[in-house]
Amino acid sequence: MSQLSSKHLLGIKDLTPDDIQLIFETADNFKDVINRPIKKVPSLRDITIANVFFENSTRTKLSFELAEKRLSADVINFSSSGSSVKKGETLLDTVNNILAMKVDMIVMRHSSPGAPHFLSKHIDANIVNAGDGTHEHPTQALLDAFSMREKLGDLVGKKIAIIGDIIHSRVALSNVFALQKMGAEVMICGPATLVPKYITSLGVKVVTDVFEALQWCDVANILRIQLERQHIKYFPSLREYALYFGVNKALLDRLDKEIVIMHPGPINRGVEITSDVADSQHSIILNQVENGVAIRMAVLYLLAGARS
Amino acid sequence: MSQLSSKHLLGIKDLTPDDIQLIFETADNFKDVINRPIKKVPSLRDITIANVFFENSTRTKLSFELAEKRLSADVINFSSSGSSVKKGETLLDTVNNILAMKVDMIVMRHSSPGAPHFLSKHIDANIVNAGDGTHEHPTQALLDAFSMREKLGDLVGKKIAIIGDIIHSRVALSNVFALQKMGAEVMICGPATLVPKYITSLGVKVVTDVFEALQWCDVANILRIQLERQHIKYFPSLREYALYFGVNKALLDRLDKEIVIMHPGPINRGVEITSDVADSQHSIILNQVENGVAIRMAVLYLLAGARS
Amino acid sequence: MSQLSSKHLLGIKDLTPDDIQLIFETADNFKDVINRPIKKVPSLRDITIANVFFENSTRTKLSFELAEKRLSADVINFSSSGSSVKKGETLLDTVNNILAMKVDMIVMRHSSPGAPHFLSKHIDANIVNAGDGTHEHPTQALLDAFSMREKLGDLVGKKIAIIGDIIHSRVALSNVFALQKMGAEVMICGPATLVPKYITSLGVKVVTDVFEALQWCDVANILRIQLERQHIKYFPSLREYALYFGVNKALLDRLDKEIVIMHPGPINRGVEITSDVADSQHSIILNQVENGVAIRMAVLYLLAGARS
Repeated sequence: MSQLSSKHLLGIKDLTPDDIQLIFETADNFKDVINRPIKKVPSLRDITIANVFFENSTRTKLSFELAEKRLSADVINFSSSGSSVKKGETLLDTVNNILAMKVDMIVMRHSSPGAPHFLSKHIDANIVNAGDGTHEHPTQALLDAFSMREKLGDLVGKKIAIIGDIIHSRVALSNVFALQKMGAEVMICGPATLVPKYITSLGVKVVTDVFEALQWCDVANILRIQLERQHIKYFPSLREYALYFGVNKALLDRLDKEIVIMHPGPINRGVEITSDVADSQHSIILNQVENGVAIRMAVLYLLAGARS
Repeated sequence: MSQLSSKHLLGIKDLTPDDIQLIFETADNFKDVINRPIKKVPSLRDITIANVFFENSTRTKLSFELAEKRLSADVINFSSSGSSVKKGETLLDTVNNILAMKVDMIVMRHSSPGAPHFLSKHIDANIVNAGDGTHEHPTQALLDAFSMREKLGDLVGKKIAIIGDIIHSRVALSNVFALQKMGAEVMICGPATLVPKYITSLGVKVVTDVFEALQWCDVANILRIQLERQHIKYFPSLREYALYFGVNKALLDRLDKEIVIMHPGPINRGVEITSDVADSQHSIILNQVENGVAIRMAVLYLLAGARS
Repeated sequence: MSQLSSKHLLGIKDLTPDDIQLIFETADNFKDVINRPIKKVPSLRDITIANVFFENSTRTKLSFELAEKRLSADVINFSSSGSSVKKGETLLDTVNNILAMKVDMIVMRHSSPGAPHFLSKHIDANIVNAGDGTHEHPTQALLDAFSMREKLGDLVGKKIAIIGDIIHSRVALSNVFALQKMGAEVMICGPATLVPKYITSLGVKVVTDVFEALQWCDVANILRIQLERQHIKYFPSLREYALYFGVNKALLDRLDKEIVIMHPGPINRGVEITSDVADSQHSIILNQVENGVAIRMAVLYLLAGARS
């Protein structure tokens, strides 16, 4: 097999385990490429990719842009600030206009869950979902799982705890889907106000004791407190959060084993994670960032192949 | 003839019919190029172009940027937000600074009518006017006329109705000039508050009944209601506008013929045009967008030739 | 000697006179390059450079970007507006994330004095300081000294007056260091409220009479009144400033010699300098801009060599 089962990457939900395997093997190759002195390949030389960001993003956009440039694609950036979007244009009109300029692929971030799925039914180009609200963020989940596989080998039977602000996270759901498809067990841990009720229907364990989660898992994926998304009345204060859910060295020292520490960034040091944990030898946080470029190169490369 | 009569493209007013013909024939070739698998040509490989936008623009800037990249030019983007302009620098100083960095061509949007004409008298580089307030927007008028010619053949004797918010439009005036130079007849239709009084001096018919305009014309170019530019007291409400000037399918069905539908975008669906018209088979709105890249490639290519 | 003594360019303070000489000789070559029809060299073809601007900048950023592109580097732009920085991430985390994406060099502007020096102790990539608050702005000082050397030859024994708002300037201090290292004498002239007290400890003359400064010097480097940085209570009004410290033609005509006029831009015409002075034949203001690209190419080129 050398092709994805879809021409889009809308979410992890639609991927088969074979798809994920193919993306990982392709990313293995690209990871070699970006660690060479010559980091570029000509694979997408005649492809134009538009990064269409209706919400701000720094690291995701930068990572996609680097992946595209390493593949020698032509890159066009569109962001909604100061754009036709503010003039009342519909999403479909905006994207159709970009495509009429002969753009081949769309990488899109949008605040509305399902926005890329809607588009995929009406346009011809490949779409990569770079985050649709708090729904899916598939490339982040792929790079997370890829980083765990790199550290632990096969994920079958491995135990992953996802800790923190689940309800406002754009990566929690995609992580659950990806890890389950790779055969891992998933536990969710967070304050009751920050864990959505539907989560139990996905076949994950839910606990509120962070020590219990750490003691259970092989990998702790510690999510960011989304300071800018807090609309909930009874959300704990940051001090309370750090006290009851923050992961610190004292907690880890009480475990009878060593676990891998992950975080999708940006980190609030001293809130969800302390510096001695984030910067410890068990942390693979910067590996996640590095692997993000390789994973995104793999996804774009495979989808471009699906075009022809 | 294989050269434009000027080294700048400041407005349609200054172009000869031969200039327009040359631009169209050059754009024919580039349209073939951008529809090939390999969309790039090396024509402007050693040229640096600065896109200098003192007003926000999405589609025009994207279209120019793609045109420049398809021609293999080096592209530099300058926008006024957060720039020296806010620090009190003059327009001429800003542009002279950019040129001192060895930039060959300036594509400029500015809110003041005549800004690019002023510059052209003081600097040495080629200037392309990408919109100077409500004065001229020559590449839009060229791509509009090019799209009509593509659909109808020769424009001599063809009847074009320009409908809507004429007074705030950056494209109406350039459209009138371009169409008349190509031998077409032009009618203007809009509410009295949105049609400037000087327009009759240009030799165009003016009507206020949208059905009369549609019945008369071969092509209806329906302009955007510039929601963000309304400073006029007695402007009709959007509901009134849609009722009396909006183009909808019921109106078109009452005609005894078929007409071509155009719109420079972004569309306010349900205001100046309904979706069943915008998306009908008579609409060439997305062709306009596609042709925009080809026309801009042609203009830049020909002006670069004029340099040497 | 063909290498700099450091792998970073943090400030002029750390450079040896030999370093400066090497940068100037390298810039001489690049100045030839950018005045050729083919302005590009492949020198940094496999290098990725991130321009990380935590403060707005137009001309400096544009100049670096052009320098990078002329050297065929891959360029990534990061600006703090809408970035993780707003989400509470630390400077070191932000930069480490960018580096994890396999970026080779960082060009950084930051509002805090010492920010690039701090970074240089914690990261592996080359850092170029593009301005750290009112501390150092080494490439500006290098291009200023390079422009003087181009006009006057050797700087040994030459007299340079730096006139204006010294305390808020990001270039004054670097200028003093660079000029002294090249053997020039430096005089500072400005209103007492805009000249920092420590300046006398640097071995420069300080005067408050602008005519005295002009009469003394071979070159007057007239700094911008930083309108946007004025927090000082007893700052003179702009009218008072122009009256007592503005450089105009009447003043220059009273001198018994001709002096060279410089300004780092953007110019407030009629405030610190009048148009008849800024645009006179003695002004090398636009040469400074042109030389900025050559100097930045030289610095990036030499640091990239220092990497391997």
